[in-house]
Amino acid sequence: MSDTPSLYIPTFDDVLAAKERIAPHVHRTPVLTSSFFNELTGAELFFKCENFQKAGAFKVRGASNAVFGLSEEMAEKGVATHSSGNHALSLSYAAGRRGIPVTVVMPRTAPQAKKDAVKGYGGVIVECEPSTSSREETFAQVVAESGAEFVHPYNDPRVIAGQATCSMELNEQVDNLDAVIAPIGGGGMISGTCLALSNIAPDIKIYAAEPLNADDAARSFKAGHIIADDAPDTIADGLKVPLKDLTWHFVSHHVTDILTATEDEIVDAMKLIWKRMKIVMEPSSAVPLATVIKNPEIFKGKRVGIIITGGNVDLDSLPWLNDA
Amino acid sequence: MSDTPSLYIPTFDDVLAAKERIAPHVHRTPVLTSSFFNELTGAELFFKCENFQKAGAFKVRGASNAVFGLSEEMAEKGVATHSSGNHALSLSYAAGRRGIPVTVVMPRTAPQAKKDAVKGYGGVIVECEPSTSSREETFAQVVAESGAEFVHPYNDPRVIAGQATCSMELNEQVDNLDAVIAPIGGGGMISGTCLALSNIAPDIKIYAAEPLNADDAARSFKAGHIIADDAPDTIADGLKVPLKDLTWHFVSHHVTDILTATEDEIVDAMKLIWKRMKIVMEPSSAVPLATVIKNPEIFKGKRVGIIITGGNVDLDSLPWLNDA
Repeated sequence: MSDTPSLYIPTFDDVLAAKERIAPHVHRTPVLTSSFFNELTGAELFFKCENFQKAGAFKVRGASNAVFGLSEEMAEKGVATHSSGNHALSLSYAAGRRGIPVTVVMPRTAPQAKKDAVKGYGGVIVECEPSTSSREETFAQVVAESGAEFVHPYNDPRVIAGQATCSMELNEQVDNLDAVIAPIGGGGMISGTCLALSNIAPDIKIYAAEPLNADDAARSFKAGHIIADDAPDTIADGLKVPLKDLTWHFVSHHVTDILTATEDEIVDAMKLIWKRMKIVMEPSSAVPLATVIKNPEIFKGKRVGIIITGGNVDLDSLPWLNDA
Repeated sequence: MSDTPSLYIPTFDDVLAAKERIAPHVHRTPVLTSSFFNELTGAELFFKCENFQKAGAFKVRGASNAVFGLSEEMAEKGVATHSSGNHALSLSYAAGRRGIPVTVVMPRTAPQAKKDAVKGYGGVIVECEPSTSSREETFAQVVAESGAEFVHPYNDPRVIAGQATCSMELNEQVDNLDAVIAPIGGGGMISGTCLALSNIAPDIKIYAAEPLNADDAARSFKAGHIIADDAPDTIADGLKVPLKDLTWHFVSHHVTDILTATEDEIVDAMKLIWKRMKIVMEPSSAVPLATVIKNPEIFKGKRVGIIITGGNVDLDSLPWLNDA
């Protein structure tokens, strides 16, 4: 078939292997509930708190699965990626646990706080110019010189199998879920959710939540093929990247719908979660709740798992305190 | 003896009764750990997260014990207090659960956010002028007219027995603690901690943590009698009130030491907890960790319970974003 991804499609056996492989390196994160949000939405909500995860986000699941699945010979040469977000932190954390080199290519214009965070987890940063061509060129050079293994932030079967362990846990922690909703950017978390739940609990509906300002996945879903935007602008900075063939495979086969929220709705939901649940989470993690509040007819009376994907936020620059 | 409090001194039986009485109305809050903070301090820390408690703070334990311990006849007339903080919220929450009236006397100058929060939990606010004489006069009038039962924020045996359930839980959740540390203002939480632990685990040392800017409890502890300051100024606004005879009884008999932290140390510890543990907690709750970081020689190698007392903070005015 023409829409079969060029990459290996991970199976449920890969998820089981990932779960065992990463167990010593990641947290089994707690599930929180809130009577306030249950009343507000009319649904019964279960928040899977990956903001409490190692390195502050679910991404450490996929990164750890990739790093600890490498042969000794491959591992010696280290791993590399280009990202300025949670994947870079997570890959640095996982490589540090295995004691192998990790190189992160980042634009020289990336915020110093993000560079410091990667360095804090032991990552070596190689700077590039803030353009796709410079990034690709610089990255190719890093890989050519070091022989490091490229771990893509989401379009990678090892990463998707790792992310799948999150929904497996959630399904163990909460009985009889009707639906699970998670944010969608490149689609790694959603693909993992599809991979896990389609095997262990195929009746659970899977929703993805996306910023309206970066709704390329929602438009792809409607169009039936990948639509990639150039540089969408949203406060949910983890969700700007487009789907790729492997994540499109899972999204197009298993997702019930992709819902969107405006920037204001995202910020309002984020602040309300901080205020009522007393947890620190990043803007991307607020998108699912924003869409649940916006679409009561879909979720009312249902038991809904919401994946809080991460908690790495700049405490000096909170979105509700920024000038418009 | 001349230093015997005028009030009834609650016993461990009162704590057991409180535990059963309040169980339907409060959360058994989780205990979190952090490898980051264990490395930073050289101690093994266990954070008892009362920021996740109903109404956002441990105070709901004591307030619920007072409210649900009232006879039907007393309950009908309602409860009243003067407080602009977590006790007012908690008493309003507990009275709402029992379906009885609750009146809170607050200065007309109190922040609108605090008034709204009390109203949000169903409390009726009676405003007074921002002076002690006006508050006392107004409060006396409220009680005279309604016959409402006064529930003091801390110098009340019912309240102390309720707060004691927090350390009882902590001791069930974590084995072999060497020490427990909690913030001290009026001394309600610390008194409850003393009452619980001196009965069930008398080897656990109890430390109190106080802002240096409001160190009346530390000075009282050294002097051997209560020293009450007029209006101390600290970012830890839950800790400005002085000890009273009942709380002094517990503090003077069971506390090992009272440690202090500067405003900067408190704000730094608060921000670091938000950043690394991804939890929202109020400035008062950061004082214990600030003193643990400051006094490694006391806590190194020890298993230390830290009570995170509450999470009610104004998200529009975070202390590290304020101008100096």
